[in-house]
Amino acid sequence: MKICIIGATGHYGYVLEGLEMERQRQEELNISKKDEYTSNCQYAGIADIVGIAPGSQGEDITPLVKRLMQSNPSICVYDDYCKMLDEIKPDIAVVCCYFADQAKAAIEAIKRGIHVFMDKPVATTFEDLELLKKFYYNSNVHLAAMFGIRYTPWFLNAKEYVDNGAIGKIRLMNAQKSYKLGRRGEHYKNRNIYGGTIPWVGTHAIDWLHWFSNEKFISVYAAHSNLYNSDHGDLEVSAICSFVMTGEIFATVSIDYLRPATAQRHDDDRIRIVGTEGVIEVRDRKIYLTNKFTSGTEEIEVAEDYKENIFCDFLAQIRGEKKCMVSAEDSFYVTEAALLARTSADEKREVRFL
Amino acid sequence: MKICIIGATGHYGYVLEGLEMERQRQEELNISKKDEYTSNCQYAGIADIVGIAPGSQGEDITPLVKRLMQSNPSICVYDDYCKMLDEIKPDIAVVCCYFADQAKAAIEAIKRGIHVFMDKPVATTFEDLELLKKFYYNSNVHLAAMFGIRYTPWFLNAKEYVDNGAIGKIRLMNAQKSYKLGRRGEHYKNRNIYGGTIPWVGTHAIDWLHWFSNEKFISVYAAHSNLYNSDHGDLEVSAICSFVMTGEIFATVSIDYLRPATAQRHDDDRIRIVGTEGVIEVRDRKIYLTNKFTSGTEEIEVAEDYKENIFCDFLAQIRGEKKCMVSAEDSFYVTEAALLARTSADEKREVRFL
Repeated sequence: MKICIIGATGHYGYVLEGLEMERQRQEELNISKKDEYTSNCQYAGIADIVGIAPGSQGEDITPLVKRLMQSNPSICVYDDYCKMLDEIKPDIAVVCCYFADQAKAAIEAIKRGIHVFMDKPVATTFEDLELLKKFYYNSNVHLAAMFGIRYTPWFLNAKEYVDNGAIGKIRLMNAQKSYKLGRRGEHYKNRNIYGGTIPWVGTHAIDWLHWFSNEKFISVYAAHSNLYNSDHGDLEVSAICSFVMTGEIFATVSIDYLRPATAQRHDDDRIRIVGTEGVIEVRDRKIYLTNKFTSGTEEIEVAEDYKENIFCDFLAQIRGEKKCMVSAEDSFYVTEAALLARTSADEKREVRFL
Repeated sequence: MKICIIGATGHYGYVLEGLEMERQRQEELNISKKDEYTSNCQYAGIADIVGIAPGSQGEDITPLVKRLMQSNPSICVYDDYCKMLDEIKPDIAVVCCYFADQAKAAIEAIKRGIHVFMDKPVATTFEDLELLKKFYYNSNVHLAAMFGIRYTPWFLNAKEYVDNGAIGKIRLMNAQKSYKLGRRGEHYKNRNIYGGTIPWVGTHAIDWLHWFSNEKFISVYAAHSNLYNSDHGDLEVSAICSFVMTGEIFATVSIDYLRPATAQRHDDDRIRIVGTEGVIEVRDRKIYLTNKFTSGTEEIEVAEDYKENIFCDFLAQIRGEKKCMVSAEDSFYVTEAALLARTSADEKREVRFL
């Protein structure tokens, strides 16, 4: 399968990691991958990246191109991603350009019958989201947003505990996204390009709420602020969202870019889920469970075999092996929720879902 | 100083603990307290409880009476607290009856020029709150709500860190109250008596937001549910509140009664405060700080001498020694915020503060 990358801005790392995992699996099966290259931009074998182009005006893809050339010196580099899609005819387009341009690039791929693995949010405006959905539902491609945090051992294992009834019925969820700010590129400073912190950072947490509970959103009340953002223009560095979900389930999301530079990791992702029969928490890449079978609160050992990769899962669906855990419906729905939360914060009012 | 207790429902424990601390201090000063009792209901010396009466119809004060009699067999037990206040003329009334009756009892004390140490919320309706404020502001008494969690070593020490600039300017706060439900008395099951979970449990967390930040509330959006409350009538067992505060500071409050019976402690009180220069958290009765002076996130050793008691602080103000950390203004303001949050949850809409 041929893969083309549009953009070099977001989480293409999932793709590189996933392909590396595939390579290792192939090596274990004693297949020599190098032998399978036939010519420049021609590839007949397992999935690999064969082309790359910027997805946004002014986007610098040079560092990623250099990195990709180390493993595939014959990779094709284009200025125009439409031309790349037309000439290479890839099976998969990875879309990870400036956030406001992603929907457009994804639509160009869908129009050509190319599967789309794209960064979240899948759109930064309601108009783009509707267009993207329209093209998707008139196609036969698979599309998934990069909700890769689901696949971390701690979240995946926690999800299995919840699904197996470890906490009974979910009643309350508190999700947290906290990032170091550092120095961000110009595309973070302009709302029209960036899309906002609730869609960019918060989308992950909003995805968890929907994913863990399988419930729908009824209303959202949100707030965000770009005060104290260290000269990052429009970039909001603090935000909260409150969601009322079906079944009188409530959820809070706390988002910030104020994690100190001295902190151990870039992110401080958390979720605490309170159920009728217990409480489960993901914090510091660990899982804590309290229920009638635990002695107080216990740390759950995260199973080693829970190391999964979202792009491998995406590939598996395209190969017809299984359903990808992130559906296009999830990708659209969570993006819509994030955009409605942003509207709530912008307009300082509750927003109801239809 | 003479103390009378009205009710035996809430957190009179602060008073018993505070008086025990006073006794120990006195013993260290070699003052024999017993010698100071002069006759039944006559007391000329340090603070002690000399009378008790129920504050609500049907309130059973017997267990507390028995307990108090162990240290003071001559304690006076009344059926009618107004008669008790008139006859004993105490310096201080401790009000801890059914929550909806507290404001009324406090007003009776204030009318007689008696200082009031009362459970939170100080009122369960806006009408009662206004009446209470009216009487208070026309008196010379001191009044404080039992915001005793402020005085725990972990909260008090964290507050000092914040005040000393350890996290810079506060931008975001996430507060949590989580309790075991157990089997609650009938007065928890009727909203008209109980007042609601946001006022009863959430008030503490709302107090922290105001106390830590010194900011005002601008708006609140809240939700609560009495589903899965194990046959506790109106009692809401899950709730969230989102506050927008002055300075574009945002705060979430998560409240539940769903903490499993197997959990180590009754409560799981937490606050996470994100500032421009660091993050501080109170969790599991510990303090965690991340800022430019810490190596990653560090646990802050809680200073031993931070063990304080709210009632001792209250007594100190009455004795003219210092200002009590909990003011009447705080007590009123935080109660009002809790009632407005309850309105938001009841009416499923944002509520703005005046």
